[in-house]
Amino acid sequence: MTRYKTLAHTMAKEIRSGNIPVGARMPSLRHVIAQHGVSQSTASHAYYLLEEWGLVRAQERSGYYVTQGAGIAVDVKRKVRPDFESGKFDISNLVFSVFDAAKHPGIVPLGSAFPSPHLFPLRRLAKSLAQSAKLISPWSTVVDLPPGNEQLRRQIALRYMGIGISQPMEEIVVTNGALEALNLCLMAVTRPGDVVAVEAPGFYAALQAIERLDLRAVEIPVDPVTGLDLDALARALDTHPIKACWFMTNFQNPTGVTLSTEKKKALVELLARNEVPLIEDDVYGELHYQADYPLPARAFDRHGLVMHCSSFSKTLAPGYRIGWAAAGRYTQEVQRLKLMTTLSASIPAQVGIADYLQHGGYDRHLRKVRSALSTQRDLIRIAIRRWLPQAVVRSYPDGGYFIWLEFPDEIDAMALHRLAIAKGISITPGAIFSASRAFRNCIRLNYGHPWSTRIETAIRELGELVPAASRSAASTWSDNASPDIDSN
Amino acid sequence: MTRYKTLAHTMAKEIRSGNIPVGARMPSLRHVIAQHGVSQSTASHAYYLLEEWGLVRAQERSGYYVTQGAGIAVDVKRKVRPDFESGKFDISNLVFSVFDAAKHPGIVPLGSAFPSPHLFPLRRLAKSLAQSAKLISPWSTVVDLPPGNEQLRRQIALRYMGIGISQPMEEIVVTNGALEALNLCLMAVTRPGDVVAVEAPGFYAALQAIERLDLRAVEIPVDPVTGLDLDALARALDTHPIKACWFMTNFQNPTGVTLSTEKKKALVELLARNEVPLIEDDVYGELHYQADYPLPARAFDRHGLVMHCSSFSKTLAPGYRIGWAAAGRYTQEVQRLKLMTTLSASIPAQVGIADYLQHGGYDRHLRKVRSALSTQRDLIRIAIRRWLPQAVVRSYPDGGYFIWLEFPDEIDAMALHRLAIAKGISITPGAIFSASRAFRNCIRLNYGHPWSTRIETAIRELGELVPAASRSAASTWSDNASPDIDSN
Repeated sequence: MTRYKTLAHTMAKEIRSGNIPVGARMPSLRHVIAQHGVSQSTASHAYYLLEEWGLVRAQERSGYYVTQGAGIAVDVKRKVRPDFESGKFDISNLVFSVFDAAKHPGIVPLGSAFPSPHLFPLRRLAKSLAQSAKLISPWSTVVDLPPGNEQLRRQIALRYMGIGISQPMEEIVVTNGALEALNLCLMAVTRPGDVVAVEAPGFYAALQAIERLDLRAVEIPVDPVTGLDLDALARALDTHPIKACWFMTNFQNPTGVTLSTEKKKALVELLARNEVPLIEDDVYGELHYQADYPLPARAFDRHGLVMHCSSFSKTLAPGYRIGWAAAGRYTQEVQRLKLMTTLSASIPAQVGIADYLQHGGYDRHLRKVRSALSTQRDLIRIAIRRWLPQAVVRSYPDGGYFIWLEFPDEIDAMALHRLAIAKGISITPGAIFSASRAFRNCIRLNYGHPWSTRIETAIRELGELVPAASRSAASTWSDNASPDIDSN
Repeated sequence: MTRYKTLAHTMAKEIRSGNIPVGARMPSLRHVIAQHGVSQSTASHAYYLLEEWGLVRAQERSGYYVTQGAGIAVDVKRKVRPDFESGKFDISNLVFSVFDAAKHPGIVPLGSAFPSPHLFPLRRLAKSLAQSAKLISPWSTVVDLPPGNEQLRRQIALRYMGIGISQPMEEIVVTNGALEALNLCLMAVTRPGDVVAVEAPGFYAALQAIERLDLRAVEIPVDPVTGLDLDALARALDTHPIKACWFMTNFQNPTGVTLSTEKKKALVELLARNEVPLIEDDVYGELHYQADYPLPARAFDRHGLVMHCSSFSKTLAPGYRIGWAAAGRYTQEVQRLKLMTTLSASIPAQVGIADYLQHGGYDRHLRKVRSALSTQRDLIRIAIRRWLPQAVVRSYPDGGYFIWLEFPDEIDAMALHRLAIAKGISITPGAIFSASRAFRNCIRLNYGHPWSTRIETAIRELGELVPAASRSAASTWSDNASPDIDSN
């Protein structure tokens, strides 16, 4: 091995171990030359190599900085807590500003987390709710404590059976939406200080939960075309005491990518070998445009290590707040945590949805929604190509309702977000999808709303705003500046 | 001061500082004599004094042990976690065994946490739910995120106004029952390692939350007649860095005692002086038998330090899981934690209850329930006097549906609980109401169920089981044995 390669490997090891944290400035060339007794050319070449590996980025006239990359342990608390304690928990502030924006029906909800409520059979569901509420046994209060209403759990188990998964209903814990299911599962398998593997980019709620529970995150890269980087995960499992993984295997939020069946099998095997539980967030699975539900990792689990979490919030009734965890060997612990924190999910909502699943025509409704979303995906892609030519769209989601856009590096998605809100348009800036604040030039758009000229116009206006969101255009964003040169 | 008094004060200080933990054996007389250079008589007298102060208990032929007493910091984690990690989290196991027992409608639910569901206007409420569910705006999903449905929060604010409290509806956060409200409030004002003041005996969920969040508890004694010991609280505030208090000021669980208005005012002032927030659990307040709602501490708060938590679970609809926190200056933090963990409470349940509050005749219903509970309290007191003459009942609850019984020290309430379950009767053993496992000779009975010969018979059978629950009767309980001599 040449000298510069040896040096690069040495420094890569330092980075991967977490000794040099994400975002930190690497030693200067002068320092490396002195410390390692190498020539300027060797030091420079070593840095070029680290850049090529995606571990550092050069910043003009400033040096090299550690990028958000594979297998680096991120202390979310250390990264995020200082802001939090001063009342400015950045990721949450962003999430809340996005939510607040989406709260006004007047805003074009490209940044919303939910599809259009008009896609949902709310009247039919209200009928189910009304009928079953009258028949609620007075005793259901005590009987339907965790794991939840039996009819509902039976209907959920039947849906698993429908896609070829044998899921004992005894292991299904009904929760207040998938968000609670995911949080309870995470609490069930971790203690403060533990390390958890998450996706980058990935669902911000995982980062918030990790922060809240005093855990640490290792970010595993997600490619918008191929999905989770399993090699990076394997390396992370070797180098970190990972206690749990929190991944989205179907129509991932925010990229829309789905792991292939082969990769899901490999993932399950890898985690089984390491005895690490997987918290599988599969809330978009039912919104597949192809004929079949892409089997989740849960389907290949023979050890009870996969906690499969989902809900009816994206497919039927966001406001009912009914989700579940099929928690495998962790079922009892999840039940107990539920009992200690929120006791049980709302019983009328549980029996209402159970009745609807049995009599309401859920599959017919789903077919309609899938077809609508698939059309809307095609329309938004055309609109993006036309009005946002600056954006690279590598994702081609086959389900769900999110699309992921990458702008050139000099575009600050946070700035674009602020400019858009001022124009009555919400988008989701990429920065909220990682603990290390990567993806600053990316945005997530929601196409879960019926296509309209209003949306088309909003995308055109977004395109017009892009130049103003360039880092060079506005000094006001300079405090958020990230490296200008990206070797990825 | 005489020598033995000086010695007693020295040892009391050691105990109160937490240096000698609750349950620990005190130094032997011989050791004290040698260490302090005092006579046997001085050492004995000092111990008598400590006993009189309630700080130690003598155990025959074994020595003196630190009792659960005023102002001693209890590391719940250290006390409870070892069992938890081996899968036997004692307090939770007990709670779950009680809940599981209550799950079977066949069991006489003297150990239940809820009043009889037959007391609730479930049909009328279902009508409200059915009507309002049909009218739910599709957009309510996004609009009704925390703080919650506006109609419901307005109705709750109106009820505060009805008892003379001006409660801005902007500070009301709707939650999944009071349990979530309490948990969110606790999370909002603490960080791992913080010390929280709780009641002893007190609601076990507080202990579970403290354990779960890696906090520590200081137990403040509650007298069944006069309520919380404010002097003990003042001392605890002086000696411990208390970050929050979690108290129940009306019809306290489990004793049924209500703090007088004067004591509530003094409590609020004491905490304001110390800048310590109060999490006020007031879920039984509406179930007062006297003419007026006993004003909660919240009524006297001028600094936004009181987080007043309540719900409709004990008064209207346990299964709907609708509660709230009026969180004062902590409102935003509570809202954010809600958004991060369970997003929002079920919307049909929120609008259903809002409609019922407006049109359903809630006050008429409450008057009926209060009158029923008041009668049932009188009947259970008569039955206890008749069938459980061994029990001392110092509590005379003026609201709620719990009564607190003290048996002689040699009675093991845990044993009684197990014996009763075998006979189809649930009770709540006192041990679950404190972190230091005091109150082993106490039980809580629920009289929230319409009086019947079945209940009368159950209490008679309980009385017959008491002798078998004596520590001397069964060696199987000996591992749970606590001191035989109680100086309190």
